[in-house]
Amino acid sequence: MARMMGVKIEVLKGDWRRAVDPAAVTQRLRADTGHEIKAILAVQIDTASGVVNDIAAIRQAINAAGHPALFMVDCVASLGCMPFDMDGWGVDVAMAGSQKGLMMPPGISFNALSPKAIEASKAATLPKAYWGWDEIVEMNKGGYWPSTPNTNLLYALSEALDMILGQGLAAVFARHQRWGEAVRGAVRAWGLPTQCADASAHSPVLTGVVTPAGVDADALRKLIHDRFDLSLGTGLGKVKGRMFRIGHLGDSNDLTLMAALAGVEMGLKLAGVATAGSGVQAAMDFFAAHPLPQSLQAAA
Amino acid sequence: MARMMGVKIEVLKGDWRRAVDPAAVTQRLRADTGHEIKAILAVQIDTASGVVNDIAAIRQAINAAGHPALFMVDCVASLGCMPFDMDGWGVDVAMAGSQKGLMMPPGISFNALSPKAIEASKAATLPKAYWGWDEIVEMNKGGYWPSTPNTNLLYALSEALDMILGQGLAAVFARHQRWGEAVRGAVRAWGLPTQCADASAHSPVLTGVVTPAGVDADALRKLIHDRFDLSLGTGLGKVKGRMFRIGHLGDSNDLTLMAALAGVEMGLKLAGVATAGSGVQAAMDFFAAHPLPQSLQAAA
Amino acid sequence: MARMMGVKIEVLKGDWRRAVDPAAVTQRLRADTGHEIKAILAVQIDTASGVVNDIAAIRQAINAAGHPALFMVDCVASLGCMPFDMDGWGVDVAMAGSQKGLMMPPGISFNALSPKAIEASKAATLPKAYWGWDEIVEMNKGGYWPSTPNTNLLYALSEALDMILGQGLAAVFARHQRWGEAVRGAVRAWGLPTQCADASAHSPVLTGVVTPAGVDADALRKLIHDRFDLSLGTGLGKVKGRMFRIGHLGDSNDLTLMAALAGVEMGLKLAGVATAGSGVQAAMDFFAAHPLPQSLQAAA
Amino acid sequence: MARMMGVKIEVLKGDWRRAVDPAAVTQRLRADTGHEIKAILAVQIDTASGVVNDIAAIRQAINAAGHPALFMVDCVASLGCMPFDMDGWGVDVAMAGSQKGLMMPPGISFNALSPKAIEASKAATLPKAYWGWDEIVEMNKGGYWPSTPNTNLLYALSEALDMILGQGLAAVFARHQRWGEAVRGAVRAWGLPTQCADASAHSPVLTGVVTPAGVDADALRKLIHDRFDLSLGTGLGKVKGRMFRIGHLGDSNDLTLMAALAGVEMGLKLAGVATAGSGVQAAMDFFAAHPLPQSLQAAA
Repeated sequence: MARMMGVKIEVLKGDWRRAVDPAAVTQRLRADTGHEIKAILAVQIDTASGVVNDIAAIRQAINAAGHPALFMVDCVASLGCMPFDMDGWGVDVAMAGSQKGLMMPPGISFNALSPKAIEASKAATLPKAYWGWDEIVEMNKGGYWPSTPNTNLLYALSEALDMILGQGLAAVFARHQRWGEAVRGAVRAWGLPTQCADASAHSPVLTGVVTPAGVDADALRKLIHDRFDLSLGTGLGKVKGRMFRIGHLGDSNDLTLMAALAGVEMGLKLAGVATAGSGVQAAMDFFAAHPLPQSLQAAA
Repeated sequence: MARMMGVKIEVLKGDWRRAVDPAAVTQRLRADTGHEIKAILAVQIDTASGVVNDIAAIRQAINAAGHPALFMVDCVASLGCMPFDMDGWGVDVAMAGSQKGLMMPPGISFNALSPKAIEASKAATLPKAYWGWDEIVEMNKGGYWPSTPNTNLLYALSEALDMILGQGLAAVFARHQRWGEAVRGAVRAWGLPTQCADASAHSPVLTGVVTPAGVDADALRKLIHDRFDLSLGTGLGKVKGRMFRIGHLGDSNDLTLMAALAGVEMGLKLAGVATAGSGVQAAMDFFAAHPLPQSLQAAA
Repeated sequence: MARMMGVKIEVLKGDWRRAVDPAAVTQRLRADTGHEIKAILAVQIDTASGVVNDIAAIRQAINAAGHPALFMVDCVASLGCMPFDMDGWGVDVAMAGSQKGLMMPPGISFNALSPKAIEASKAATLPKAYWGWDEIVEMNKGGYWPSTPNTNLLYALSEALDMILGQGLAAVFARHQRWGEAVRGAVRAWGLPTQCADASAHSPVLTGVVTPAGVDADALRKLIHDRFDLSLGTGLGKVKGRMFRIGHLGDSNDLTLMAALAGVEMGLKLAGVATAGSGVQAAMDFFAAHPLPQSLQAAA
Repeated sequence: MARMMGVKIEVLKGDWRRAVDPAAVTQRLRADTGHEIKAILAVQIDTASGVVNDIAAIRQAINAAGHPALFMVDCVASLGCMPFDMDGWGVDVAMAGSQKGLMMPPGISFNALSPKAIEASKAATLPKAYWGWDEIVEMNKGGYWPSTPNTNLLYALSEALDMILGQGLAAVFARHQRWGEAVRGAVRAWGLPTQCADASAHSPVLTGVVTPAGVDADALRKLIHDRFDLSLGTGLGKVKGRMFRIGHLGDSNDLTLMAALAGVEMGLKLAGVATAGSGVQAAMDFFAAHPLPQSLQAAA
């Protein structure tokens, strides 16, 4: 157990290429017979690796251990792009942000709280201000906020939700899945591995691409940025320099994604990476062959 | 001593109508022979009352007591509207926000730190994340931020600073002073007291107006909002319902302020408040007679 | 008869302070026994003088003369601010613009055509391109335009119409009438004449104010602009320098208008004009006493 | 000779695939011994065909005939994208618009006049209003305009010119040339003809692509729009349905163009057009191999 920000933190070991193993969660919690662990935190989509964790399965793993800890989920990168059923899955605290699936500029984040989480916070003794929920919950009843909120982004949020609900969640989720498949097809055509090695855990909003040994992913990113005005995500933490990330979310369309893939493919060539084939061609083949089903197309 | 957010907080008693008395600060700190007090927090302009505290004088009061506590100043409502000399005055931590004198939407706040504050933070054991300065200071060196910043407002900030520095700080400060004098003249003409009872401590950015006994300030605010589309600041904390606030900062001009005063004057009349005279007339007399000195007018 | 732009133009004499006299129209047309006059052009609101012409009455005057000329109406300054019944009044060509009652930036103008006007255009031999209606009418059927239209302003128009129809035309018309009354009350209080000398013909969207002999209206306008950042309309044509214009239309409210009146009143004082009384006070009295009827207030 | 808009118009026959032949201009003007022809109008880039006319050569052709007609040039589609030397080439009237190389929304057009054109207009007897230059030239001296101008687009124009001059005209021209080469390379790879059949007259701002016999170009455009959200230019006039147009100007970059080419290539496939090869691959090869020379890259 390490300490971070004055709080004891334990990270369940993983390899950054696979989803959290629910069985490992149950096992660890069963070992905590004294209930020292107060909360379990999982991300739904890990933005560093492009791995999706199965939140419902982790809840069941907690239940299987009969452990009373709060279940907290970071859905910053997933909210609005794939299903998230807070009540159905038994999530106690959900955290999201404006700048991903909600298609807004960065600047607001969101918390949703279960009754159990609110109850727990009443007995909490850790100093807090920003996360002092009681005052927030009280003022929210009247439509207010304890301090000055980011009012401009609240207008943007209203517009974003109108767009998302106007298209329908099923259509929005299907669109992201389709983009993810197209990009993974391109990566396969290039003959490169994706950072996520688990076929059932690929993220619909970003794809991590591992560069061949000897190819500095950040040098490649810089070359692509300088030559083609395309900003790719950097590898984070321990995979820095070994992979880059292609985002496929937000107010985009098939051709926006084709532009990104073309930029990557030209960059790989200029960097001297020998690719197996054309990812751009693979993505065009996929998009041409796989229209969004009529029933999921928005009325526009 | 009370506790707030898990931290012991002691408030030096005041009456919400006068500035902090530096002598009282010295006296309190001298009593703290064990140096239990770790930081002293003052606001430069108290947005609830419209009172200006003399930050340089409070620093001298701390020095007079020979006390090692950090000196922290909230200049949210004052930065960009009146002088603030962090280094000259010996401030250790300054806190500001985007939505007042910087004329931006709400959404970012700013911290400035003295070397002493940074040194102190290294030994601090209170849990923190948002205020974990070490990581921020480190990444700022390269122009970055540890998490996703509010990038849109950084563009707004750049524009706002261009506007302010283009006009010159002296001109900007003089403009706010002039607006404050005009509004206080109007309030005097109405025969109403200002919340700030100290002639040397009036805020240049807002004026608190105390309503007569029996007149609910919030009912008056609602009437003015409904009839004239003008949103006045509410009384905060213990003065709620007994005063309202007129802001005079931001991207405004003399006539914007005349509009606000006209809305208040009509509202007072409709609410049955018998005023001594016309504040609108007083403000027009003031503005007509007091142009901004030629030397302080911007090149536009 | 003079010639303007190669076309014979005859102006029915008026004094710039009163509406067109319908009897004079009938008389002139009866004299045109050979039907040399091809079209009669009237403005609904004359933006130079603030005079409203009675379009329905002019139509009746044309009919009384049994004259076949086309009836063309410039409603640039009136459309969206007061009733205009093209079909009911028998108007053949209506001309409007984006930048007045439609609350948009300048950049588009509009023509509406009666069947009689379209028929007449088929036989017209004057060279034309911009006013070649046949091609426009044909392409409009499919939602297109013969050349590249100002697409951005079409979005603005859609939004503006939503705003106007959301409030309801009756409410929008009443609001402008109310503003006109308030401004005229202020001008009366100053003891100055309005350019429009006909009590039944005052414009609801602008008021022309005649300056006292010896006071250059444009020098006054410049003084007000320089000191108070307020841009008033200049006198046009033969009244240049002898009057200025206060607009009261667009996305405004009572306090915006109070700001304009305060700017004028301070300017008059600084220019040494002795006014009879306070127009600002008169307008505040009017606005406080005359709310828009509940039934005409928008749902917001 | 036909008549258009009441004015005699004669079109020098061409085949819509080649530039104007200067020799033909000289020959026609020599035949006009009575100098009945008052003006010669040429477009610099014909937006329907993507053909560039050599304006300097046409001027020399006029001079060779010793003909006094005015020389008028439509540079709507070319201004800001390729050289235009009004004085050096002896152009009398230049016409441009906001919505092409100037990267602005549609809404303003521009005229530039030679002293000879202004002199000629003084003796002109054709009715005119919009093109009544005398009043415009007079008011322009003081920075004004006879009627209400599109003020918002004047701000956009100022910004656009800053962008263009900041990059340098040579860099801007080279960028458009490079895009044109990339797109023509793609069209060649598809095995389709360009509308412009003259290798020395290809437009740097748009490329017309001729569809194979039996393939309705407008049906193809609709398919691409519906499936890929990409709006291609339609064939105009006599080539409607037989070609479509790809624009390569404005605030774009290489990847924006790759997106457009990918949309076309997928659309051709879905429409059953058998292409010789991949235009997308050809364009990637071109872009990767041909960076803009260092000396022409903007400082950003």
